[in-house]
Amino acid sequence: MAEQVRAIRTRKTILSAAAKIFEERGYQAATISEILTTAGVTKGALYFHFQSKEDLAQGVLAEQDQQLSVPPRASKMQEIVDVVMLHAHRLQTDPMVRAGVRLSMDQLAQGLDRSGPFLRWGEVGLELLQRAQAQGELLPHVVPSETADVIVGSFAGIQSMSQAICEYQDLVGRVSALMRHVLPSVVIPSVLAALDLSEHRGAAVYAEAMENLAAAREAAPAGAA
Amino acid sequence: MAEQVRAIRTRKTILSAAAKIFEERGYQAATISEILTTAGVTKGALYFHFQSKEDLAQGVLAEQDQQLSVPPRASKMQEIVDVVMLHAHRLQTDPMVRAGVRLSMDQLAQGLDRSGPFLRWGEVGLELLQRAQAQGELLPHVVPSETADVIVGSFAGIQSMSQAICEYQDLVGRVSALMRHVLPSVVIPSVLAALDLSEHRGAAVYAEAMENLAAAREAAPAGAA
Repeated sequence: MAEQVRAIRTRKTILSAAAKIFEERGYQAATISEILTTAGVTKGALYFHFQSKEDLAQGVLAEQDQQLSVPPRASKMQEIVDVVMLHAHRLQTDPMVRAGVRLSMDQLAQGLDRSGPFLRWGEVGLELLQRAQAQGELLPHVVPSETADVIVGSFAGIQSMSQAICEYQDLVGRVSALMRHVLPSVVIPSVLAALDLSEHRGAAVYAEAMENLAAAREAAPAGAA
Repeated sequence: MAEQVRAIRTRKTILSAAAKIFEERGYQAATISEILTTAGVTKGALYFHFQSKEDLAQGVLAEQDQQLSVPPRASKMQEIVDVVMLHAHRLQTDPMVRAGVRLSMDQLAQGLDRSGPFLRWGEVGLELLQRAQAQGELLPHVVPSETADVIVGSFAGIQSMSQAICEYQDLVGRVSALMRHVLPSVVIPSVLAALDLSEHRGAAVYAEAMENLAAAREAAPAGAA
């Protein structure tokens, strides 16, 4: 068991180093030997976890996926808002999430398939929008797959703009504005009126998700991690 | 006069070479000597036009600005749609516009101020939205600067998503979807009903702008270019 814990820790150390190097040098220019030096692990340890530079990048990209989950909400549209605002909050505060997002936005990274995060986030959005539709939250003309893609694509650009202009300082405000612009075209008025789209929502959901995570860990039998 | 024409042509050759190298290698890794080799010009010629790598990148970034202008429209909201759809069309078809957009989305390009295009596009949007507001096209709660930023940021991400997934093949469809999601929250219903938001709009506006440009060149006195 101790060995397994160590392996997980080593994997994390390598990913953090890779995130740092990709962010500093770009995907194209980064080398495995730089990542090795920064991680301070052996070549054998690195290749045990990751086969190639692309594999390392995919590992960093995957870290932005939902590790922290939003508790289920009665309104599936509030749940989408919470997923989006939580991601904005994590992007402002977590270097690993930031590195993953930057890599997936690196239009110059040739040979790296960057479509993964767009497609995965699109699926998360699609599933929630379909559930919202099934319970009558959406206006009749809405096509869930189209709306999911608009939200995912727009979010990607708004974070990039916020990073370019002020290193993410205004990110949650900009994402709240996006929600206020898109959702009135999607959600029925009575649902819309009950949504919390404020820019403080992400931090509140983060605190809630962290509490739930701690409670779940406490409840799990020892050693199950 | 012939000398001036030659200088303009040389500048263009250098910028095309710079666009190509930045796209292939990324801003960080690109070198001036690679750009020199690709352009096939002398060092002196290059430094006459551009002082540094950043200067070259700013030149490429500036190329995505309106060289081709949308004819004025009675509805300023249709004019915004036309600017956006024309840009989407040019991004699909013009390598120089593509290089500029990619550079401005290169979150790994350290030491390059990428905020310029976001801010310039934001100003174009803001001015048109303010004029739309003055002539009563907008819903009463709309804050033009906020809406301009939502449109510019969202567009940036949607083009990146389209490039990552299918090299821009579905770009105009995605941008049309963005317009259909955002504008109902911004525009009064009677204006909204009259807008052309179709995905073919960009190509049509491009043809119109090219015709106008040709007519203007014909009308100008010889040598005035």
